[in-house]
Amino acid sequence: MAASEDSLRRALVEKQSTIESQGNAVRALKASNAEKKAVDEAIEKLNALKLEKSSIEKQLQASVSGNPGSSVSKEAFRQAVVNTLVGRLFFIPSFKIYGGVAGLYDYGPPGCAVKSNVLAFWRQHFVLEENMLEVDCPCVTPEVVLKASGHVDKFTDLMVKDEKTGTCYRADHLLKDFCNEKIQKDLSITAEKAAELKHVLAVLDDLSAEELGTKIKEYGITAPDTRNPLSDPYPFNLMFQTSIGPSGLSPGYMRPETAQGIFVNFKDLYYYNGNKLPFAAAQIGQAFRNEISPRQGLLRVREFTLAEIEHFVDPDDKSHPKYSEVADLEFLMFPREQQISGQSAKKTCLGEAVSKGIVNNETLGYFIGRVYLFLTRLGIDKDRLRFRQHLANEMAHYAADCWDAEIESSYGWIECVGIADRSAYDLRAHMDKSGVPLVAHEKFSEPKEVEKLVIVPVKKELGLSFKGNQKKVVEALEAMNEKEALDMKSSLETKGEVEFHVCTLGENVTIKKSMVSISKEKKKEHQRTFTPSVIEPSFGIGRIIYCLYEHSFYLRSSKAGDEQLNVFRFPSLVAPIKCTVFPLVQNQQYEDVAKIISKSLTAAGISHKIDITGTSIGKRYARTDELGVPFAITVDSTSSVTIRERDSKDQIRVNVEEAATVMKSVTDGNTTWADAWANFPHHSSVSAEE
Amino acid sequence: MAASEDSLRRALVEKQSTIESQGNAVRALKASNAEKKAVDEAIEKLNALKLEKSSIEKQLQASVSGNPGSSVSKEAFRQAVVNTLVGRLFFIPSFKIYGGVAGLYDYGPPGCAVKSNVLAFWRQHFVLEENMLEVDCPCVTPEVVLKASGHVDKFTDLMVKDEKTGTCYRADHLLKDFCNEKIQKDLSITAEKAAELKHVLAVLDDLSAEELGTKIKEYGITAPDTRNPLSDPYPFNLMFQTSIGPSGLSPGYMRPETAQGIFVNFKDLYYYNGNKLPFAAAQIGQAFRNEISPRQGLLRVREFTLAEIEHFVDPDDKSHPKYSEVADLEFLMFPREQQISGQSAKKTCLGEAVSKGIVNNETLGYFIGRVYLFLTRLGIDKDRLRFRQHLANEMAHYAADCWDAEIESSYGWIECVGIADRSAYDLRAHMDKSGVPLVAHEKFSEPKEVEKLVIVPVKKELGLSFKGNQKKVVEALEAMNEKEALDMKSSLETKGEVEFHVCTLGENVTIKKSMVSISKEKKKEHQRTFTPSVIEPSFGIGRIIYCLYEHSFYLRSSKAGDEQLNVFRFPSLVAPIKCTVFPLVQNQQYEDVAKIISKSLTAAGISHKIDITGTSIGKRYARTDELGVPFAITVDSTSSVTIRERDSKDQIRVNVEEAATVMKSVTDGNTTWADAWANFPHHSSVSAEE
Repeated sequence: MAASEDSLRRALVEKQSTIESQGNAVRALKASNAEKKAVDEAIEKLNALKLEKSSIEKQLQASVSGNPGSSVSKEAFRQAVVNTLVGRLFFIPSFKIYGGVAGLYDYGPPGCAVKSNVLAFWRQHFVLEENMLEVDCPCVTPEVVLKASGHVDKFTDLMVKDEKTGTCYRADHLLKDFCNEKIQKDLSITAEKAAELKHVLAVLDDLSAEELGTKIKEYGITAPDTRNPLSDPYPFNLMFQTSIGPSGLSPGYMRPETAQGIFVNFKDLYYYNGNKLPFAAAQIGQAFRNEISPRQGLLRVREFTLAEIEHFVDPDDKSHPKYSEVADLEFLMFPREQQISGQSAKKTCLGEAVSKGIVNNETLGYFIGRVYLFLTRLGIDKDRLRFRQHLANEMAHYAADCWDAEIESSYGWIECVGIADRSAYDLRAHMDKSGVPLVAHEKFSEPKEVEKLVIVPVKKELGLSFKGNQKKVVEALEAMNEKEALDMKSSLETKGEVEFHVCTLGENVTIKKSMVSISKEKKKEHQRTFTPSVIEPSFGIGRIIYCLYEHSFYLRSSKAGDEQLNVFRFPSLVAPIKCTVFPLVQNQQYEDVAKIISKSLTAAGISHKIDITGTSIGKRYARTDELGVPFAITVDSTSSVTIRERDSKDQIRVNVEEAATVMKSVTDGNTTWADAWANFPHHSSVSAEE
Repeated sequence: MAASEDSLRRALVEKQSTIESQGNAVRALKASNAEKKAVDEAIEKLNALKLEKSSIEKQLQASVSGNPGSSVSKEAFRQAVVNTLVGRLFFIPSFKIYGGVAGLYDYGPPGCAVKSNVLAFWRQHFVLEENMLEVDCPCVTPEVVLKASGHVDKFTDLMVKDEKTGTCYRADHLLKDFCNEKIQKDLSITAEKAAELKHVLAVLDDLSAEELGTKIKEYGITAPDTRNPLSDPYPFNLMFQTSIGPSGLSPGYMRPETAQGIFVNFKDLYYYNGNKLPFAAAQIGQAFRNEISPRQGLLRVREFTLAEIEHFVDPDDKSHPKYSEVADLEFLMFPREQQISGQSAKKTCLGEAVSKGIVNNETLGYFIGRVYLFLTRLGIDKDRLRFRQHLANEMAHYAADCWDAEIESSYGWIECVGIADRSAYDLRAHMDKSGVPLVAHEKFSEPKEVEKLVIVPVKKELGLSFKGNQKKVVEALEAMNEKEALDMKSSLETKGEVEFHVCTLGENVTIKKSMVSISKEKKKEHQRTFTPSVIEPSFGIGRIIYCLYEHSFYLRSSKAGDEQLNVFRFPSLVAPIKCTVFPLVQNQQYEDVAKIISKSLTAAGISHKIDITGTSIGKRYARTDELGVPFAITVDSTSSVTIRERDSKDQIRVNVEEAATVMKSVTDGNTTWADAWANFPHHSSVSAEE
């Protein structure tokens, strides 16, 4: 940790001790019935000391929370969060007793509860409120599906191998590390060189295998662990491969995303929805990426939970019926133009961004708004959340528009949700590969008259002139677009014949009037058939949860001031358990009351824990604060109990019979702690905490 | 379907038509003010006709539901259930547009909702009510873990290959099919032969690869598809294999169960629980088995959701604090003895089975009881649920006792939950492999005095006599058990020397009194260290859900009597959505009311759907019954609406503002439909349904 942090901690301990002496002085003055003036002065001094202490605490917190802070304090902050997470089993490195596996983590009991709360809220906020069709498909996926989606061919990272040991590295990571290291630590490089390295960093994601290889050679980059030479970069597919069935003849993969399961079911889901658009399907499930060398701890893992929505919509009408409900929201947006011109994200009204065309369409805008509400209700700090539009080179050629919800963490801005208008790409890909029409129909309220071009080659005449080449000429004639055909028609009518280039023959042929009939005919159509566009919000649940941990974590001093205590300020919605029940002291009567309350909490569906250890109440509060438990019920009599709120440390007194009802109402969000505070007698917190 | 079923259907249509004529006759008589006696006689006749109709319906249902029924009607029943499930997208064969993959199924929207309800109830019933520690581990598992658990070596089925095409079959399935076919269809076989084949079927699961191969050769069994000869049987490992990381040097598997993730975390979880026993950990997640040739549709699949509990307990004290809560339960139990003596499962009091030692211990009994409550509350028919004890040859050598919750379906009795006392096997296996102590400690309330054997070889003397062999002699002396040591002690005391066999030397040596000191010393011990036993209830969620579908499905005639309608009688807890909202006719006012009600249902967290299609209300009821939706709210005025219960078809009338509150209370289980029926005016159902 930073030196400044240590000195702040020392200052804090000293200040606390001075406060305690001053407190004693005040009490002594009061007890000796000293003059009012003397007492008032002593109290004023005490208050001034408390203010100074609070200022030190704030500095310490800024230093540790790394916000804004240097990279050192960011890492110290991250370490403090991760230590707490691992210490309290929010996370456990998977298969730890066998040395673990990079990029695999378990959720321990509180982490599992947080995850389950986040997913339940996701279902409520998206699936239930939007009437989405949820599906649940297998992780094991046959090759044909991922061939169609492009993952078999393109889901790769470029890898280099240590030529002696065979250890693998991501090529771009090595180049990135080299450039950063040089720029930051090598004082001998020229300004020119520095500019070159910065340029490499800027275009890193766009470099081909050859370009990466050239740079690695040019800079003489070697294997970081051994200094051995490296192989040329080559693509490594990030999917876990396996084999389905015993024959070894059916390759399969662990899915890299859940979306494909929805696309292949489009036809059934469209039918299930009464053949009506728009509708959305959703899936929550595991996804797998066999990362070359996972870094960034909990953010880049080899197995993770995705929650994905595919909203199918008529490409000619991307309005959304509930758009007005989010149009007035304001939050940080970071459009393409502002990124290019070097500005930063600005607070923007969503409705304006849509009406100005910065966000491509209403439906995309609607989901951006809903994602904002989802994340902030979970407890993500709105000032460290921005919606960043993809630059042109980040976006697939078929995508209409794409925005990432990025959350600022100690690792920088992290992509946690992608919201993309992928046009008709995915459905077309599966339609082409499977031959099954994945289309929608719009019935016209009355038939529409359309003019259609009709080209009829006269095969007999063509056969006489072109013999073996007849088929190619026929195909070329039929393939003409409207302008070409109408030009030919008028030429034939005026000149009787025309030169015509047949690509497949590589030459011109002479077409006579007798050889083709070209006309425009009017037809009545009753419906239109089209491939729907898909708008895809895709949530990395593990990343959201990790960022939530960072945004919820803070430190505060213990009562004695000699210790900094960890607290997670989770909202009830997210907290692993909603309350803890403590008998104040170890005694049968209090334990019986605790059990009665526990029973009524269980009946009300409120997750909780009884803590009957003999530890001091202060220590037990600290333990439950560290788990982010919002409320603590302390049994200090057989008729009534206190309820303490985690962040304010305020306490109210309620009857034993009321405890579960109050908890239910406050944790469900039907009432707030402020309501409870207004309605129940306050309990003075002299006892355990300051 | 069976011929008798067709004739029953015809009879039903006829009967309905007669009932309608008779109904008309009654109305005509009433309208013409005929004599009371004539009207009464006509009504009596009408009632008699209705009774006859009801009897035909029951016969038809018995015929279709296959209960008791023949195998033909069982298959017809299963077909009816599966048709409904697939038709309404409870299930979809995965990757259907690409021809599907055997043994992989998607949950479609209603199936997904049912699954999510079942899992939520599982969490409530087990994790929350029992304060279990839930964890969530990856599916990708490194080889070392599954080597320790025995899966790499033993998780196999015996397979044979078509020697020409390479198609794979399960060896035991082919032998089983052959025997069944012969016994049932070949009338030429002798009684002796039939007995032999029956014996083969009885011992099928115990046959080795060699024995299976011999039988297949002896009976001349060939590949079912081609009649080609078959290979010898050989073991095929059922785990999906993959490779972790890019090097190809770290083999991994998709986990075949979730339990191992819990075992490897024992140490952390024990610490998290305050180093106290007993405690239980739980995990819900995907598991994978690469079946050779999946059969039995939805029951034998290659990827499935497991929910597993590992309850860690002191092997010397397997009592359970909440045991008394289940001890009085009575249900079908099928102990080992009754299976061997050819009896069938009997209704048994759980407490008696435990006290008589039929169930090994209280904790095992407690979980059997909790599983019974879980399954029946989901809607599993208690008369088609039994707890069957494993026979000695089914049980692993280390297991103390093992019971399966088996549910009767059209496929026979299906194992859906296994409840096993696995003793200390799993923790010991991982402790041996990893070298990490996976043990628990019991602190004694006061130190216990124990007598310990102390053997002290006198190395100097031994070195003089045995030189280079000294070390082996020392080790052999130290390895003596208590009896050997005390025998030696007395021999040395009486004779001064003794012959002693040293295995590692392969010879006897002479030990003299001066060479070793043997004594018993009293020591004080403060705690005991032991490997906990584990009791494991393991739930196949997909199997439970499929059986639930079969137990919930029934047929009833449409109003006109010309059609049999499908109904799932799901309890609210399980139903995919809790209610449907229908405007009676298409009109803006009613649709507005439907939207208001929908909003209040959403706010109350009640999943529902609005159906504004112009279809007749009868058809819309049928559609929602087929999804198992328990309630339908019909908007037939702007001030009040009707609520219809699915199975009774009874309707009550409530104010628009009350609708959501009534639904909330009834679907949460705080009140029952009977309460609602007693408290609200009844709506006569003359209109749409009979």
